[in-house]
Amino acid sequence: MARKKPDVAPPSIFVIFGAGGDLAKRKLFPALCNLKRDGLLPEGFAVVAITHQPISDEAYRDYLKTELPEITGGDFGCQQWETFRSHIFATALDFGEADGYLELGEVLRRIGAQLAIPANYLFYLATPPRFFGPIASRLKEAGLTEESGEVWRRVIIEKPFGQDLESARVLNRLLHANLEEHQIYRIDHYLGKETVQNILAYRFTNSTVEPIWDHRYIDHVQITVAESVGVENRANYYDATGALRDMIPNHLLAVLSVVAMEPPNSFEADAVRDEQTKVLRAIRPFTPEDVLTQTVRGQYGPGKLGGREVAGYRQEPGVGGDSKTETYVALKVLIDSWRWVGVPFYLRTGKRLPGRYTEVAVVYKHAPNAMFRDASFGHRDLPANMLVLRLQPREGIDMTFNAKVPGHRMKLGTVTMEFHYEDHFGSEPTTGYETLLFDCMNGDATLFKRADNIEIGWEIVEPILDVWSALPTRNFPNYEAGSWGPKGADELLERDGRRWKDCSIDCNT
Amino acid sequence: MARKKPDVAPPSIFVIFGAGGDLAKRKLFPALCNLKRDGLLPEGFAVVAITHQPISDEAYRDYLKTELPEITGGDFGCQQWETFRSHIFATALDFGEADGYLELGEVLRRIGAQLAIPANYLFYLATPPRFFGPIASRLKEAGLTEESGEVWRRVIIEKPFGQDLESARVLNRLLHANLEEHQIYRIDHYLGKETVQNILAYRFTNSTVEPIWDHRYIDHVQITVAESVGVENRANYYDATGALRDMIPNHLLAVLSVVAMEPPNSFEADAVRDEQTKVLRAIRPFTPEDVLTQTVRGQYGPGKLGGREVAGYRQEPGVGGDSKTETYVALKVLIDSWRWVGVPFYLRTGKRLPGRYTEVAVVYKHAPNAMFRDASFGHRDLPANMLVLRLQPREGIDMTFNAKVPGHRMKLGTVTMEFHYEDHFGSEPTTGYETLLFDCMNGDATLFKRADNIEIGWEIVEPILDVWSALPTRNFPNYEAGSWGPKGADELLERDGRRWKDCSIDCNT
Repeated sequence: MARKKPDVAPPSIFVIFGAGGDLAKRKLFPALCNLKRDGLLPEGFAVVAITHQPISDEAYRDYLKTELPEITGGDFGCQQWETFRSHIFATALDFGEADGYLELGEVLRRIGAQLAIPANYLFYLATPPRFFGPIASRLKEAGLTEESGEVWRRVIIEKPFGQDLESARVLNRLLHANLEEHQIYRIDHYLGKETVQNILAYRFTNSTVEPIWDHRYIDHVQITVAESVGVENRANYYDATGALRDMIPNHLLAVLSVVAMEPPNSFEADAVRDEQTKVLRAIRPFTPEDVLTQTVRGQYGPGKLGGREVAGYRQEPGVGGDSKTETYVALKVLIDSWRWVGVPFYLRTGKRLPGRYTEVAVVYKHAPNAMFRDASFGHRDLPANMLVLRLQPREGIDMTFNAKVPGHRMKLGTVTMEFHYEDHFGSEPTTGYETLLFDCMNGDATLFKRADNIEIGWEIVEPILDVWSALPTRNFPNYEAGSWGPKGADELLERDGRRWKDCSIDCNT
Repeated sequence: MARKKPDVAPPSIFVIFGAGGDLAKRKLFPALCNLKRDGLLPEGFAVVAITHQPISDEAYRDYLKTELPEITGGDFGCQQWETFRSHIFATALDFGEADGYLELGEVLRRIGAQLAIPANYLFYLATPPRFFGPIASRLKEAGLTEESGEVWRRVIIEKPFGQDLESARVLNRLLHANLEEHQIYRIDHYLGKETVQNILAYRFTNSTVEPIWDHRYIDHVQITVAESVGVENRANYYDATGALRDMIPNHLLAVLSVVAMEPPNSFEADAVRDEQTKVLRAIRPFTPEDVLTQTVRGQYGPGKLGGREVAGYRQEPGVGGDSKTETYVALKVLIDSWRWVGVPFYLRTGKRLPGRYTEVAVVYKHAPNAMFRDASFGHRDLPANMLVLRLQPREGIDMTFNAKVPGHRMKLGTVTMEFHYEDHFGSEPTTGYETLLFDCMNGDATLFKRADNIEIGWEIVEPILDVWSALPTRNFPNYEAGSWGPKGADELLERDGRRWKDCSIDCNT
């Protein structure tokens, strides 16, 4: 049995590398404020914002006060801002320079003494990934990663965790050279989503779900992460990365692992992550032939979305006119396990699709026999039952099934049982980072990725990267902005006698 | 595979015995009008209303025109009334007098000739049950039950089908002396309810239902038919009958059989009814000891309901001040079958309860293991999953399950996935008789009761009747009008560590 979470995080200092960036103001501070509002932060808590340019504590606090309400749309929950602000400090640092880290250590000791906070430090690396290794190594040299007794030191790093299997391994080696694995918290905000965590709750606290959660009852699973935005201002990163690297080894495989994993013995971090790694290891490796038949890549051209003309990917600022980068990917994934044999998991994600939503559709097999008197209903004509886990928006769960249409005949219609989070729990805005930050402060790594989770994700996509780079596509762009992606993605399912589920939200907005 | 139902009923004459009564105007004519509206009645169709007192065709038609719109609340659907009315005829008859049946034969032949309708006759016995036998026998003597070639003759009889096993057997023998079983349509309007038929559709067209529809996954089942009305103007019948006879052998066991039956090979009438009889036969017979421990009877005393004082049963007009008749019954039924071993079916029905509703609650077992990190959640603390088939009102299906309450902890809350008929199919008012009448005209007896269905129902309750009459209760009244029935009903479940599901509608109205 897992231990119970404390009511309040232990006293600590939260150090943000890259505190002048987007992540800090969009996610980290709003999440900390929500934790503060909910009484989950201890008295002994401080934030140290590490910036490139020197800035005074007061100036940084003013910057936050100006930026935060705007970013969080007025719903920003830090009523205790005035008490909170005095616990926020700023300091400048050159990430590569060792002396700076000694000074940082001084700053932390000073703040700790001033506010009576023990020397528990959480370093959040909201920096470009090239700094992950160097920062870890400088922190160690400065003695800032050393734990003793009750005192802990932790490092949260953001994706991308490498650009391929080799670089991920290098990164993990670099981190492990300076930190114990239990000190490393690799964050994938998908696992912080309430609806993703709820997949675990749904599967493992309800007796009606698990007995039919296998190849005997499930025909296939679809996981869709659709974005309506284009590359926005991320061309620099995105054009070197592409949809596959950007989304599959982390987010989509994280969702897949939660859907497909075996029940862990407990919700202890390693019990859960062992199972996630196990199911990812069961994914059948893509041969080069598989890559040709089971993967589809796309790049959007100009099109119309939400009633307005939008540019094609190659016309976006910062993207070359002959870019070979994919903005869409669809995969057919097979899992060679007792539970999932013969049940394909179809994954797709792309930009400039007609809507923004993330959902998992579990499509059950057909009822085994059709016995109704209208002979026109062969059982193959009946729509199959479908469970839809709506991760966002309209968070909730739907079960689509057949019911009798009222009338003198046994005519069947497809209907839906619906559950909406909002109806039951309201809709308090969160960043998705609250749980993750609170868990990290409490030393609970359940929702963070372990080195092996990261590496197996890259192992899975590595053969696809290889074949794709050996055979660059010549038909890009191959889908219009505002369409549902390349024709090949539909054909991928049609070859199996299946089709993508329609978007269950209004995708014309 | 079952044959397909025709689009229109075959030409026929619909003869109503007891056409001056409530059933004719409240149910039969409105149902015929709805069938007419939906184009399901043929050109060659007539109604012959048999009344006690002679009345002219025109006078009876005027009577209907006055009564029907009022009864059906203005929603009455016979826009084609003017064409329909000319096909309605009235004739008087003394049910016991043989000569009258010869005259009736003449009337039918004349109308048949006039409207070019072949001699297919459907006799609907909307009479007190003591006339069922005599009418069947007179019809036979007059040659009106004889079929030949394509010509059919059918008799629909209404409940009660006897007052106990012996009288039911006598009635069946009387009917069989004059009719073939295939000519006899014993109507139980519960089987005509869309929501009851939908239980079959739900169970047997959805692949996710049946695999967990047994003792391995289901803890127990509750079937509730709650009425808020008292005895109304039926004391004469009701005080001699009681809740057990009035509701259990027919309606509640009909619902139980639909919930509990094995999948039939087809939806042919006998295939379905074979399975219904089979599951009823598997009900463990009540020993006298069982009657004392597994049945509860109640009678309402004065109380408050919907904000007003209401009389006790013994104060109702036509009821004796020392009546021993039960107005409430609760039973624990066990089914000795492979599927249902160890799964109690709790049945309850009563008058003057706080609400009017009929529903089936399928309560699943608890999830086998609780693995969430808050140790306070032992799996026994988690509410079990529950499927609620809401037969009326608010017709639909709910599934109650556990979901994660948003927040930094794995806290679980009970939520509900809901399906409402009205959302998908609108809410066209029906009487519940449309399907049954249409089926009978088409010779489809699937939703009607066979002699053996009737008798097994009585066999089940017979030991209860015996013990109850040998040991008349001395504590009546034992529940207040407006309460949820006698304390013993709660204790019946409490002894098993269970409790009745709360009413899922607003029962304070």
